[in-house]
Amino acid sequence: MTDLSPILAKADEALPQCLERLFDLVRIPSISTDPAYKADCRKAGEWLVKELADLGFDASLRDTPGHPMVVAHHAAEREDAPHALFYGHYDVQPVDPLNLWEDDPFAPAIKTKEGHEVITGRGTSDDKGQLLTFVEACRAYKAVKGSLPVKITILFEGEEESGSPSLKPFLEANAAELKADFALVCDTSMWDRETPAIAAALRGLVGEEVTITAADRDLHSGLFGGAAANPVHILTKILADLHDETGKVTLPGFYDGVEETPANIKASWESLGRTAESFLGEVGLSIPSGEQGRSVLELTWARPTAEVNGIIGGYTGEGFKTVIAAKASAKISFRLVGTQDPAKVRESFRAFVRSRIPADCSVDFHEHGGSPAIQLSYDSPVLTKAKNALSDEWPKPAVIIGMGGSIPIVGDFQKMLGMDSLLVGFGLTDDRIHSPNEKYDLNSYHKGIRSWIRILDALANS
Amino acid sequence: MTDLSPILAKADEALPQCLERLFDLVRIPSISTDPAYKADCRKAGEWLVKELADLGFDASLRDTPGHPMVVAHHAAEREDAPHALFYGHYDVQPVDPLNLWEDDPFAPAIKTKEGHEVITGRGTSDDKGQLLTFVEACRAYKAVKGSLPVKITILFEGEEESGSPSLKPFLEANAAELKADFALVCDTSMWDRETPAIAAALRGLVGEEVTITAADRDLHSGLFGGAAANPVHILTKILADLHDETGKVTLPGFYDGVEETPANIKASWESLGRTAESFLGEVGLSIPSGEQGRSVLELTWARPTAEVNGIIGGYTGEGFKTVIAAKASAKISFRLVGTQDPAKVRESFRAFVRSRIPADCSVDFHEHGGSPAIQLSYDSPVLTKAKNALSDEWPKPAVIIGMGGSIPIVGDFQKMLGMDSLLVGFGLTDDRIHSPNEKYDLNSYHKGIRSWIRILDALANS
Repeated sequence: MTDLSPILAKADEALPQCLERLFDLVRIPSISTDPAYKADCRKAGEWLVKELADLGFDASLRDTPGHPMVVAHHAAEREDAPHALFYGHYDVQPVDPLNLWEDDPFAPAIKTKEGHEVITGRGTSDDKGQLLTFVEACRAYKAVKGSLPVKITILFEGEEESGSPSLKPFLEANAAELKADFALVCDTSMWDRETPAIAAALRGLVGEEVTITAADRDLHSGLFGGAAANPVHILTKILADLHDETGKVTLPGFYDGVEETPANIKASWESLGRTAESFLGEVGLSIPSGEQGRSVLELTWARPTAEVNGIIGGYTGEGFKTVIAAKASAKISFRLVGTQDPAKVRESFRAFVRSRIPADCSVDFHEHGGSPAIQLSYDSPVLTKAKNALSDEWPKPAVIIGMGGSIPIVGDFQKMLGMDSLLVGFGLTDDRIHSPNEKYDLNSYHKGIRSWIRILDALANS
Repeated sequence: MTDLSPILAKADEALPQCLERLFDLVRIPSISTDPAYKADCRKAGEWLVKELADLGFDASLRDTPGHPMVVAHHAAEREDAPHALFYGHYDVQPVDPLNLWEDDPFAPAIKTKEGHEVITGRGTSDDKGQLLTFVEACRAYKAVKGSLPVKITILFEGEEESGSPSLKPFLEANAAELKADFALVCDTSMWDRETPAIAAALRGLVGEEVTITAADRDLHSGLFGGAAANPVHILTKILADLHDETGKVTLPGFYDGVEETPANIKASWESLGRTAESFLGEVGLSIPSGEQGRSVLELTWARPTAEVNGIIGGYTGEGFKTVIAAKASAKISFRLVGTQDPAKVRESFRAFVRSRIPADCSVDFHEHGGSPAIQLSYDSPVLTKAKNALSDEWPKPAVIIGMGGSIPIVGDFQKMLGMDSLLVGFGLTDDRIHSPNEKYDLNSYHKGIRSWIRILDALANS
């Protein structure tokens, strides 16, 4: 084991300069969704290339049809060291409504808010502060040791907030250059202020839109009601049939590939003390609504769902119209876990619907994307090393968590580059990413840098 | 029995003048919904007052907060003759989109369309042509006999197409003047070109809007899906539960007051030859969807329904949003028959919904009107006399039919003036009322006049 204390001390001592660099990057309004900020996006990429080059990386800006990518390489001290691809994004969300900001989103500062020192500004948490924790960790490590413990490739994109249109083609075209032993992704949150977290399970997603057509026009319910098929009735019956009385999804084969979460992981989740009351209470609810007999963390991290995200049919304006609609439609998503196959889930759903459509009615389906779940091994060496390193830095041991949503980049790395991702981040749930008054705790930044120093070192040692 | 042949001959001979008068009335653009035509509405009322006064009626225009009413009285030849209130409306629907009209809507003419001589123009069928069949019948009767066989009160309103806001207060304020033994309403259709019809059953209506609220905001389905209540799921389950496998409505007590249609009436409906294929085929359907084992005429005329007229919840725009909505809502109507009680149906529905709402969710209801069904005796003397009179005039015997929708005036006459209505009309289903190219068959007008001559006479005789 390396003696990390001089490197950690260096990081502590250099914190003011680390902050200055974060401020510099935040001052560049790199809003990727708004064409007016195209030059600023490029400027943020160029700023990163320069910083990485100054640090000794072989760094370059790579053009894409959209905003450019930053790619940088650095060798390791030892030839046989592992190779990590670090991913982050330099683009940020728009800032409107601007009048709701207490501070200028692009003039970062240190403020005390709710008893904590925080760095204010758009992108401080998502993702400029987070990605710089890694860069500054490399800087401190190199300043003390003259080298890095693992071989590092860096990939920063500038289109994450606008759906990453250039990412897949770029990964495909540069697979050989970008492929590493594993990826490090710093775009997630801590469990709480004292407890770092590594996300090891991300649910997949299947999106479907279904439209049922009955009569060839809207009908008067007085003239036709009781005899003519009502597509809203057909649709609501189908949607109601999607769940049984215990909250399980009824699609044939839906649970193929769904495994029970290991007992020790479930026990660690239970120890987090997240009750139905505390989790649902924040949004005005109290009773878990999904599969019976499972905790809210298991329901949202490790169980698949069928969820109606939108439904419309007939007259929905003010007042009343006695109409029997010609059409009714719904948008439905399935969250997937384990090895559930998106294509099979989609087909099972479509067959389920088709079998319930009367012979004189018709149904159309529209696909809205599909991706499998990401399930990393709960006891891989990379994950175990990172967990121990984080536990050394923070007041409480790191927890291995799931995430109810999807992070597409993780699936892309797995599918296109054949590597798993380690998801570590130092954001907090109150960082207000995507909202006015985004902030990043000074502690997240400082201890984030220190965390990466520890993780990099741990990854280099077997 | 009176010898009607000279009166009928008079009507035949006077047809050109009858048409001139209808043309005069149609030329007045009495669109009640558009304030720009306020003076024209009054003009139409004044025109009718003058015609009725010329005919010997004690006729007057009565102001209301909206468009004026026409009220007219005429004594009968015999003191003990029955007293009928004849109702019609002189206002018409708007004409837009004007470019879809083949002829000027306010320049009536006789044209041949699809092999039939028709009178073109807005209001020719709904309801100026229809109401004049009655006035012209009185004219012919009086021209030959010097008197009328029944005592007649006439009520023409000018707000039927805009919801009749002044009607109820007017009936209330003038109940003693308007009360008769029965009402004659000429605002309905023939069964087909050869078969006159009398509507004896009109379904009632209860309108309800239900809104279910779960969380206090829209939720991300990745973060909360599987644990948080989805109001669309709750709503679709409730709506699906409203019908059982046989198409019956499951609300407790819903069928209280619903009686089986008499066998002879059902047999007469079956003889009309209206099959599921012919009825539903017109709108692209073929399979009756309501209660099993009943004909489409029975389903739409004599059976109650629960129908979802609109539903909305979550994201319904282009693309996809993985949202769990905070709210979902639906508009539901119940068509009522027999003596079903609108208030009880509403309460049963609300109790049914409330019992299915999870404890941490809430529900709001909004009332959209309610009226009971109108069920006239299938063998009352008035109905039997009118049926025989119509059968004498037309190629095929008159049929007693039901109507799936409601005609509010009939309920008002029953409730406020304590009298039943005889619904006879000579419109055809292809008259395109409320649409561009409205027309009234010349045959409807001519034989409509002759029909009323026969009915008036029949009503006077016991």
